[in-house]
Amino acid sequence: MLAEIITIGDEILIGQIVDTNSAFIAKQLNKIGVSVYQITSVQDDKEHILKSFKEAEENANIIIITGGLGPTKDDITKRTIAEYFNDTLVRNDEVTENIKRIWGDFTVKTPSQVSLDQALVPSKAQVLMNHHGSAPGMWLEKEGKVFISLPGVPYEMRGLIDDAVIPKLAKQFKFPYIQHETILTYGLGESALAERIEAWADHLPPYIKLAYLPSLGRVRLRLSGKSMDKHLIQIEIKHQIELLLPQIKDVFVGFERDESIEAVIGQHLIASGKTVATAESCTGGKIAESFTAIAGASQYFKGSVVSYATQSKVDVLKIDPELISKFSVVSAEVAEAMAKAALKLFNSDYAIATTGNAGPTKGDADAEIGTVFIAIATKYKVFSERFTFGDHRHKVINRATTKAFEMLQKEILKK
Amino acid sequence: MLAEIITIGDEILIGQIVDTNSAFIAKQLNKIGVSVYQITSVQDDKEHILKSFKEAEENANIIIITGGLGPTKDDITKRTIAEYFNDTLVRNDEVTENIKRIWGDFTVKTPSQVSLDQALVPSKAQVLMNHHGSAPGMWLEKEGKVFISLPGVPYEMRGLIDDAVIPKLAKQFKFPYIQHETILTYGLGESALAERIEAWADHLPPYIKLAYLPSLGRVRLRLSGKSMDKHLIQIEIKHQIELLLPQIKDVFVGFERDESIEAVIGQHLIASGKTVATAESCTGGKIAESFTAIAGASQYFKGSVVSYATQSKVDVLKIDPELISKFSVVSAEVAEAMAKAALKLFNSDYAIATTGNAGPTKGDADAEIGTVFIAIATKYKVFSERFTFGDHRHKVINRATTKAFEMLQKEILKK
Repeated sequence: MLAEIITIGDEILIGQIVDTNSAFIAKQLNKIGVSVYQITSVQDDKEHILKSFKEAEENANIIIITGGLGPTKDDITKRTIAEYFNDTLVRNDEVTENIKRIWGDFTVKTPSQVSLDQALVPSKAQVLMNHHGSAPGMWLEKEGKVFISLPGVPYEMRGLIDDAVIPKLAKQFKFPYIQHETILTYGLGESALAERIEAWADHLPPYIKLAYLPSLGRVRLRLSGKSMDKHLIQIEIKHQIELLLPQIKDVFVGFERDESIEAVIGQHLIASGKTVATAESCTGGKIAESFTAIAGASQYFKGSVVSYATQSKVDVLKIDPELISKFSVVSAEVAEAMAKAALKLFNSDYAIATTGNAGPTKGDADAEIGTVFIAIATKYKVFSERFTFGDHRHKVINRATTKAFEMLQKEILKK
Repeated sequence: MLAEIITIGDEILIGQIVDTNSAFIAKQLNKIGVSVYQITSVQDDKEHILKSFKEAEENANIIIITGGLGPTKDDITKRTIAEYFNDTLVRNDEVTENIKRIWGDFTVKTPSQVSLDQALVPSKAQVLMNHHGSAPGMWLEKEGKVFISLPGVPYEMRGLIDDAVIPKLAKQFKFPYIQHETILTYGLGESALAERIEAWADHLPPYIKLAYLPSLGRVRLRLSGKSMDKHLIQIEIKHQIELLLPQIKDVFVGFERDESIEAVIGQHLIASGKTVATAESCTGGKIAESFTAIAGASQYFKGSVVSYATQSKVDVLKIDPELISKFSVVSAEVAEAMAKAALKLFNSDYAIATTGNAGPTKGDADAEIGTVFIAIATKYKVFSERFTFGDHRHKVINRATTKAFEMLQKEILKK
């Protein structure tokens, strides 16, 4: 069974916002066995929306629509859905109560008329209650096809997908089993990797699909299986990975899980009761920010010194200025001294340090743009590696961050 | 003249990656007067791609395609384009040279055959040289319609859009003038704001469109104008903003520029020769990371202490532990002490500090989830504000970061 996602809003088509909703919805649908045929972003324009509904209905059985449910005149999704279903809008009491409850928290306690009108829904729609905002989700059916309309505000949409849409779909339909496994490799280009594993790839069964995903110096290999026979897919993906791994053991890094690498590290640290701190120069706090984006990080993340200016390495991290002048601020010696300083300052079990030149111009060092030293310190040792990450600032920062997590994970798993 | 963007790749449809390419392309097209009619994400499937080409050609004059240009078998865009144009693939010498140049930097100097085959392009295509990777861009024309195929790797695609696609489109066509102005408001809900400015909105000329964009506690009002008469649009948008501002002066925050608020702050700091540092608790380094994502940040950003653990506030920032136990770690007093400590530690002109509870569970303080104190310190004073940012971790972190930048900008502009 196929789904199509339609996102409505001029802000997407003028590039004012990136559509992050579709990826979230697609991932959640995949988990229950629904494949997404197409994602379509259309304007806040009645004829365009109607056309996209018609086309989606031809391609898919489940059509999920986000956006255009706000209280103001530029939001026309609800009226357009009513027109498509040849329906009229009626006031829903439960939604009215929800709107009044929300306004109860405001300074002005009485909802405005445009806000109250968010309780108007097509009479044929089942309302999906939005616990994080005033626009309700709506579920409509038409000749076996399901149309689901959700607000475009990400956390409102997410709440409705998880709490209402996914459970209701899973209850109403029987879906096949879908499994994706992504294998991370590092150090071999996409084409060289493809040549090496060609014989294996050519003999994959038809229900297992292979994809290559190059990014940030790594190539990810994704195996996707889909069948009503869950057992078959699980066995076959496991078997194919067992055949593959010996062929790529020199470049194999690990498996990509739904969780980010920093989340996996966090779980290891919680399990072992260990802590981590960072001293960041070229990554500018991105490693700290990635750790602390995860709920529960306070159990293992102690803190960070972002010693961006060279002087702050001396003032805050107490790095010996002679070490800096002898080896340069972008050097293995300084990276290792920073890691040791962070370990001591925050009294942590592990510390990560980065120093490098993210470009576009050279900073306080002669190092080529893209040169980064990453150091890991533990209570027993300190070590570092030198990398060259290219000449795009964001790429350098992101690759250094990813690599730092990989180095720490490897060190933790050694134990 | 309308454009359509087609992104090709299963990784988008299974939610493995967020499509950030489309927003970038849409924004760049808008700048030269090209409106995007639709964005469509399709699978790595020949029939599906052909269908999307046909539909796009009916809607738009310019079709920009990204993705599916890798060297491996799952990437089928190039062969599918050749089929759509009833064309064959021929080897392009300039692309071959580029591939050899890239492999020259590798350990293995001889390009693999699959890599060399990236120089195969449809014979009718004009090649757009990719200076950041081996897959070339391609420009094909058909009955006045332009098809442009670009690699999906973001920085390769961006280079081609900026260096080849936009200049070539601007030279070949005459486009209308498009202007967007976005007005930031804070403190009034979308529906209340809409009621207040209804009379003004109802009298906007037909070539000026209004949109409401609520997010993170703010409502953005976007005015969009489009016409061959550039002067008319510029005058009219200016006039309408002059009519609007007196009606919203209590909630008006500023204008949203293409640049982020942290970039604008950076320019102010460079102009005045001033510097900034941060001491971050609940934002976990996000403010530092946002500053340092901008090229040239080393001119004004000194560094940060991410004092995530309470003890690190004492050990690194030297906050008096009695102050923490008296007022709690989430308090105006601690936020202000942190800001003063960062100012001193990094010897900066301004400092931002954050302390709060991002949830989902309460930390070392009794403060309600979502409570955040933000402090700004200068050489002459320190002040703070208390906020309640709701109960979603990422929302709290993002809103606190945005608000911190707003407070600093306001303080800088006072001078």
